[in-house]
Amino acid sequence: MKIEHLGIAVKSLETSDNLFARLLGKENYKQEAVQREGVTTSFYQVGDSKIELLEATNAESPIAKFLDKKGEGIHHIAFGVEDISYEVERLKKEGFIFISEEPKEGADNKLVVFLHPKSTNGVLVELCQEKPLK
Amino acid sequence: MKIEHLGIAVKSLETSDNLFARLLGKENYKQEAVQREGVTTSFYQVGDSKIELLEATNAESPIAKFLDKKGEGIHHIAFGVEDISYEVERLKKEGFIFISEEPKEGADNKLVVFLHPKSTNGVLVELCQEKPLK
Repeated sequence: MKIEHLGIAVKSLETSDNLFARLLGKENYKQEAVQREGVTTSFYQVGDSKIELLEATNAESPIAKFLDKKGEGIHHIAFGVEDISYEVERLKKEGFIFISEEPKEGADNKLVVFLHPKSTNGVLVELCQEKPLK
Repeated sequence: MKIEHLGIAVKSLETSDNLFARLLGKENYKQEAVQREGVTTSFYQVGDSKIELLEATNAESPIAKFLDKKGEGIHHIAFGVEDISYEVERLKKEGFIFISEEPKEGADNKLVVFLHPKSTNGVLVELCQEKPLK
């Protein structure tokens, strides 16, 4: 398990891409839309992990709701795992609650699930696994 | 630059150490008090980065204030750098604002500075550098 990325909710990718490029001293390596989640993402490689900026593309997006409620800031932490189904089973046995147990396609070629923050100290935790080659 | 650690504010280290040990599938590698900051910390190695749980030791602690205002959750992200003074100068020139520009002793044998969240998209950003051997 490693910290695969840290998701940060932002109002404007244009503004925040400028900010994070100056903060990290490097440009993003890609932008990618995830239509199902109503977000456009921007990724920065930082050591062995990534920073993922998240901009809402519509008012129903979870990111739009997060910004309304809490403002800009850290949205989630994603742990990279080798076998996401194994980890979901392990964590269910440990009593953790998932927002949805079925891995879905996320950004950056990943299968992802989210744990419910009420079972994880108020932290929205994502597990992600690189999608297998077909 | 890398993600050195992610700081998470918790009400009770006893409760949250139990929770994170089950989540991460491993025990913390140390607890350490940082008296000046009014916190007790607990560290977990996760890949090349760490998770730092933070419990307040008094009501004036920044963590006590954070918990009052926002509840438990992610408190800050720390980027590990080779030369903290160089990075402070670089980021000042880029227009970033520091809570204090003078590196101070933090937990886990580090020199640390914090950027003001108002200049970093609502994210409390720490820079840290391993303390040089004397």
